[in-house]
Amino acid sequence: MPDQQRADARRNYARILEVAADEVAVHGAAASLEQIARTAGVGSATVRRHFPTRRVLLEAVSKSRIEALCDRAHDLTGKGDSRDALLEWLQAVVDYSVSSRGLAAALGYDSEVAADPIHGNSCAAAMEDAGNPLLQRAVQDGAVAADVTIAELITLIVGIILATENYPDPEAEATRLFQLAIAGISPIAREGSR
Amino acid sequence: MPDQQRADARRNYARILEVAADEVAVHGAAASLEQIARTAGVGSATVRRHFPTRRVLLEAVSKSRIEALCDRAHDLTGKGDSRDALLEWLQAVVDYSVSSRGLAAALGYDSEVAADPIHGNSCAAAMEDAGNPLLQRAVQDGAVAADVTIAELITLIVGIILATENYPDPEAEATRLFQLAIAGISPIAREGSR
Repeated sequence: MPDQQRADARRNYARILEVAADEVAVHGAAASLEQIARTAGVGSATVRRHFPTRRVLLEAVSKSRIEALCDRAHDLTGKGDSRDALLEWLQAVVDYSVSSRGLAAALGYDSEVAADPIHGNSCAAAMEDAGNPLLQRAVQDGAVAADVTIAELITLIVGIILATENYPDPEAEATRLFQLAIAGISPIAREGSR
Repeated sequence: MPDQQRADARRNYARILEVAADEVAVHGAAASLEQIARTAGVGSATVRRHFPTRRVLLEAVSKSRIEALCDRAHDLTGKGDSRDALLEWLQAVVDYSVSSRGLAAALGYDSEVAADPIHGNSCAAAMEDAGNPLLQRAVQDGAVAADVTIAELITLIVGIILATENYPDPEAEATRLFQLAIAGISPIAREGSR
């Protein structure tokens, strides 16, 4: 591809991504690919060439936030109390997801995405790779049960975000439910209380 | 309204509800009101007269299952161990929601629905009224913290259902995450482990 064409394609992509980010900020995971094409002044086919599925679009829009969360995990790894480090990171995942519509959907499990070798769930995979060392150190210290996986923790947060996004104060509600899941709804079975 | 007209209207409603149930079973909360009108052979206006919003439709489709869950709560109230009774009921909410697409969406918080005095969130309200005595007895017995609300527990389950519905085995995944939230991800802060 000649330089000029390549430069045009890059500009085109950047423009569509910018429009897509605005659209996702308003409509979250329900953002319309057709509306993005209209606003960007390109054909639907062009949008679909860059973003074959809504999921690919959500991942592209969320990329910088995912990278920031991965960086945060790396910074926390091996530092301070292992439980504090894990919980601080998970709370950051809650905070970022609340403030960024579409991020939770980009992290959520999707069987079609998981089976796609090219556009597979790269966001979730990157997050799991970044967060797993935090979890494993907390497990080693006995703060978390050994059979808990980082994918489970992220899926639980995704669910909390989805269930609270229409509340008047989603951040307060999501943080409350997350703390409830950390502490446990009823962590200790009482003996002989029947 | 003459008897004949009333009978026609009832049949019409029953027919639309039946079509809607099929549509929700396939598409969950994303069921299309337009598609329901086409399949039922009525105009969109007729569907919208019976079901002004998608939420009202989801509630109508989920009504018998909500009633069954409320009955289950009443049966369990005051019987056996209070923690067991609460957890048995919450697990039933998980099970019903996994097997019935649209039920979680009908129970989820929606600010527009909450503010609607006529078609307000009757499903969620009925579930909260039915489940609250189970929670309060468990709180009295010290099995659950006193500041936990039944609305929080139901919202957490709604989130778990939404985040796991695309997994290959949603029931196993939802039950696992629910058990994790019951037991707590990391219930006890360790002292002096830094």
